[in-house]
Amino acid sequence: DSTAHPELEAKDFDEETQKALEEIDSCQNEIEALNEQASEEILKVEQKFNQLRKPYFDKRAEIISKVPNFWTTAFTNHPDLNSLLEEGEEDCFQHLTKLDVEEFEDIKSGYRLHFHFEDNPYFDNTVLTKEFQLGNLGAPTSLSIPIRWKDDMDLTQTNEPTCTRTGRKRQLDQRSFFTWYNDHVDPTSDSIAEIIKDDLWHNPLQYFLVPDVELGNGVDDEE
Amino acid sequence: DSTAHPELEAKDFDEETQKALEEIDSCQNEIEALNEQASEEILKVEQKFNQLRKPYFDKRAEIISKVPNFWTTAFTNHPDLNSLLEEGEEDCFQHLTKLDVEEFEDIKSGYRLHFHFEDNPYFDNTVLTKEFQLGNLGAPTSLSIPIRWKDDMDLTQTNEPTCTRTGRKRQLDQRSFFTWYNDHVDPTSDSIAEIIKDDLWHNPLQYFLVPDVELGNGVDDEE
Ligand SMILES: [Ca+2]
Ligand SMILES: [Ca+2]
Ligand SMILES: [Mg+2]
Ligand SMILES: [Mg+2]
Repeated sequence: DSTAHPELEAKDFDEETQKALEEIDSCQNEIEALNEQASEEILKVEQKFNQLRKPYFDKRAEIISKVPNFWTTAFTNHPDLNSLLEEGEEDCFQHLTKLDVEEFEDIKSGYRLHFHFEDNPYFDNTVLTKEFQLGNLGAPTSLSIPIRWKDDMDLTQTNEPTCTRTGRKRQLDQRSFFTWYNDHVDPTSDSIAEIIKDDLWHNPLQYFLVPDVELGNGVDDEE
Repeated sequence: DSTAHPELEAKDFDEETQKALEEIDSCQNEIEALNEQASEEILKVEQKFNQLRKPYFDKRAEIISKVPNFWTTAFTNHPDLNSLLEEGEEDCFQHLTKLDVEEFEDIKSGYRLHFHFEDNPYFDNTVLTKEFQLGNLGAPTSLSIPIRWKDDMDLTQTNEPTCTRTGRKRQLDQRSFFTWYNDHVDPTSDSIAEIIKDDLWHNPLQYFLVPDVELGNGVDDEE
């Protein structure tokens, strides 16, 4: 098992070089084994802290459930998320009751975003879940629970995504919430999912409390 | 210290909501403290494994020094690096004797790429170093040891970077090695530095052994 390189068997190097290359290969194997060990130890640390954080996230969820429109307010105040919501979607989001992020046990491999809704005029689902499988096995994929729209209420049929801003804003603006929800083209660079998971969910209070100041300017200066 | 949010002092919420928000804030503080503890533990694991890997990297460097043109061959065989080298630079790279990557003790904060050269017709330096400071304090920067070019040998004055390929290739092709070396515009997304640090230096043997098959096709099919 000293080499994974068939070229090292070919022996088209002089003896001294051949020996050196085999020694380099042996060093690489040691380094690779240490890399794997390091990844395992880091994963254990992350899992340990996921467990330590969990009671605080659970307690937070319980308290948040007592604050009217907490997630709706935090989501719509978030400077990178508010432009996502088209007009009908904003109304729909008034029925969002809970947001939850579930990281897989092997935290390298994926996560789920759960959007909980109360009874609403738009769809029959009580939870909409978008899942990201980013693990080592197979190509990364994402999938979403299909939305059971009520008659004539399918918001993906009525919205034209707006494309009025520039740069990062433009990129985010090209999708509405439900367009994003149903989009699985490039799961490894889903910036909206990452903002929800790493920023909004991680510390929603700052967005609940502080409206995006830019919103005061009205919509789309460029128009 | 229960709150970092001045908005929580404003008391423009009803009493129950105010109390809930303060409890959420307190949960956030606990979560944040655990996040910091997790980062510290992960850093310690990474530092420990840097120490454990070091003897193998040192031994590897010693063996590599006995293989003629090891780094030059690995660098010029690398599919993402070979297009970087302009004609004069390829000749210059025949004098590259050693490549070294030095990660800062706090591995989050930066690294140095050291290119060691023997006596050569192009410049007087024996080591060219490009350094990346990506730490939390201040804006990320990169800097390079100035090249002391010999008379009329400044390769940055004679090369026009080629821009003939598409996509990723094009992006890399727009710079020559020394243009890249002297470029400090966007240190946080220096893809060439990252390829050298995370791929070439990490396992150079595969590139020493396996020439880029695409090279056999000759240069720039699109022409
Ligand atoms: Ca939009
Ligand atoms: Ca080039
Ligand atoms: Mg929660
Ligand atoms: Mg070395």
